[in-house]
Amino acid sequence: MAIWLDQTSDDFEARFKAFLSTKREVSDDVNDIVRKIIDDVRQRGDAALADYSRRFDGIDFDTLPMRVTEQEIDEAYRSISPELLAALELAASRIERHHARQMPKDDIYEDAIGVGLGSRWTAIDAVGLYVPGGTASYPSSVLMNALPAKVAGVPRVVMVCPATGGAINPTVLAAARIAGVTEIYRIGGAQAVAALAYGTETIEPVAKIVGPGNAYVAAAKRHVFGTVGIDMIAGPSEVLVIAEPDNDPDWLAADLLAQAEHDPGAQSILITTDRAFGKAVEEAVERQLKSLNRAETASASWRDFGAIILVKTMDDSIPLANRIAAEHLELAVADPEPLVKAILNAGAIFVGRHTPEVIGDYVGGSNHVLPTARSARFSSGLSVLDYVKRTSILRLGPEQLRQLAPAAIALANSEGLDAHARSVAIRLNLEG
Amino acid sequence: MAIWLDQTSDDFEARFKAFLSTKREVSDDVNDIVRKIIDDVRQRGDAALADYSRRFDGIDFDTLPMRVTEQEIDEAYRSISPELLAALELAASRIERHHARQMPKDDIYEDAIGVGLGSRWTAIDAVGLYVPGGTASYPSSVLMNALPAKVAGVPRVVMVCPATGGAINPTVLAAARIAGVTEIYRIGGAQAVAALAYGTETIEPVAKIVGPGNAYVAAAKRHVFGTVGIDMIAGPSEVLVIAEPDNDPDWLAADLLAQAEHDPGAQSILITTDRAFGKAVEEAVERQLKSLNRAETASASWRDFGAIILVKTMDDSIPLANRIAAEHLELAVADPEPLVKAILNAGAIFVGRHTPEVIGDYVGGSNHVLPTARSARFSSGLSVLDYVKRTSILRLGPEQLRQLAPAAIALANSEGLDAHARSVAIRLNLEG
Repeated sequence: MAIWLDQTSDDFEARFKAFLSTKREVSDDVNDIVRKIIDDVRQRGDAALADYSRRFDGIDFDTLPMRVTEQEIDEAYRSISPELLAALELAASRIERHHARQMPKDDIYEDAIGVGLGSRWTAIDAVGLYVPGGTASYPSSVLMNALPAKVAGVPRVVMVCPATGGAINPTVLAAARIAGVTEIYRIGGAQAVAALAYGTETIEPVAKIVGPGNAYVAAAKRHVFGTVGIDMIAGPSEVLVIAEPDNDPDWLAADLLAQAEHDPGAQSILITTDRAFGKAVEEAVERQLKSLNRAETASASWRDFGAIILVKTMDDSIPLANRIAAEHLELAVADPEPLVKAILNAGAIFVGRHTPEVIGDYVGGSNHVLPTARSARFSSGLSVLDYVKRTSILRLGPEQLRQLAPAAIALANSEGLDAHARSVAIRLNLEG
Repeated sequence: MAIWLDQTSDDFEARFKAFLSTKREVSDDVNDIVRKIIDDVRQRGDAALADYSRRFDGIDFDTLPMRVTEQEIDEAYRSISPELLAALELAASRIERHHARQMPKDDIYEDAIGVGLGSRWTAIDAVGLYVPGGTASYPSSVLMNALPAKVAGVPRVVMVCPATGGAINPTVLAAARIAGVTEIYRIGGAQAVAALAYGTETIEPVAKIVGPGNAYVAAAKRHVFGTVGIDMIAGPSEVLVIAEPDNDPDWLAADLLAQAEHDPGAQSILITTDRAFGKAVEEAVERQLKSLNRAETASASWRDFGAIILVKTMDDSIPLANRIAAEHLELAVADPEPLVKAILNAGAIFVGRHTPEVIGDYVGGSNHVLPTARSARFSSGLSVLDYVKRTSILRLGPEQLRQLAPAAIALANSEGLDAHARSVAIRLNLEG
């Protein structure tokens, strides 16, 4: 049973507000543990990594090297079924082609008075990619995080992945190989984040760390932020489906459950105009739930955070969708374009009935790392831009300096910064 | 006396490494106080703001309204000298023109098999700009933070600025008016950040908060991050000057001091090939220091963090500059282009002897909010991109779905996500 919200009821605004501010994440306070692990890795390097990997993952680096060998990667690649390999390769080529269009262009120019100005984009030197172990170890995530780095021209992409008992999911290794990642270490947790940020005897430090992880990994990323860059800290996934009542309830139920099966904190929301249709979708969800592998996860998510919102007209969905600012927005309507135009806050929009969100998870070509928890109001999904940085370039000759000097000196003096004023004035024999 | 590092000495690498990791910021642990203030503002709204402003700024909102009136802004604007006003307006028009070139373009296209893909950029709804009070209240910062938001098309830009005794620097108000900011509140500290993030009776919440501030403001921004977006947390400023020995030592000394006067934690570094020239610059620094308003700040910065690095050839400066990754990089050399090309890690590069960094602080046109503390390795200065967000758009018809379905289903199954597989399969009557 999902929660129902009806726009025509008097308490709708209050209930919608409360709904928006529902916390879906259990945030264990793991900061103290994480800080200790990071300090230990900074001090003892590889020895600390060996200890933690023995304790948490049951691996002994004396018998199995920390770095995954080329041979292991090749073997994993060859062990994958041809069908799955073809799927990974199709996904990779579509992701690569789409992301290649995102590469920002340098803009170097001279203005009307001859000042040279420029914005120059260059790739980050080295990036670390965290890949979770166990059931959250998704090959699709490897492609989504590593390929934009390759497109950006990052010369060194390092992957870390915990390997309980020494084993890393072979499909993950195959995905890494397809994405061109060859430097892979079987380490995980806060210790892996620390190793990427500060380096050890074996691992050179990187400049930025990306990729999903559990509460320890997230806390470690927050902790090392500043020393290195980090991507967003992703929360549980969410989908908002806006649907006219003439859809097949089973299609939409499948879409809602595709989010719900990710995490008990995931959220699936349907907005529609018709109560009977909403009921039919709800019934389809209950029916389909029974046959899922991950029925327990999906039903917890649907029970605790699922929602069906009734609006008077389809247009009434627009302001609500902008306030929800969903990570994924599906528009299951006959004429989606007006909604696409009007809904500005969404990580990704899936347009029309034949675009289930799942296509975007794997083979659409766009990135599946998207802003969660309403952060689409102010942030964007992962892209090539996350792997480059911009340097401003300014170039004046004596004549341009002469023209701009009086204003610069006036502003410096008004701010009480007289060394600033002097640095301009001294070049022109002016009074600072 | 600055620290000297000589590339020809045996312990250079070790000393350079230690130099790179020197902490320049005193980070008071203010988290507990900040958390309490934020909770209080969330609970009591305007009443909490009134209490804190009475206590910290000596203002009574019963006699002076929290919101700065239009009349006050007009009066401030009219009180500015014509010379300073012209300087502000020149700066604003140059900043606006440069930033207009940064607006990213939408990219909506159809691929070879007819899949519609798109990257759409839209402005953030509402942005809050923090402006410090007192001597750190810089009108140039108002222009640098507010104008890119205006260029991006942000419909609502709100400014907060603490006003000890009720007064806000009139030049700051004039800069706000020039930048088109009219919603201004005389509040500051963690309480102002909380009000922007969560809203009060008077202040509607924003989606992102930018602008510099003290340790309390920085901690508050970290705290509300997630609920709203934030810009980078800037550390003390820094400049790296790479200079051939035929420069006028006084010019470079003035540039080094222009950074040093900002903050005792600021850092000024000279790299050159000639010891005698380094000595001459050092002497010029000592001489110029004596006549500065802010001599105390500048000499503390130069004494504690200033550095002169001797290299064998100018080319040897390249790897060092890339490791330092300075916020500001000045190239006082006759032929700067090869260095511009080779130095990839820098917030902004000031090319040639007639481009003192100070021009970039005020009237160059590029932004003066730049990555500090070596973060130019992985991040960029403030730009229009900080005020927009990208939505991915994906659109398939039945034929495209049919073509991509097998790969999506194979990947979903390999990840054990059967609701994902079903959401695709059900639309084509396939087996999930």
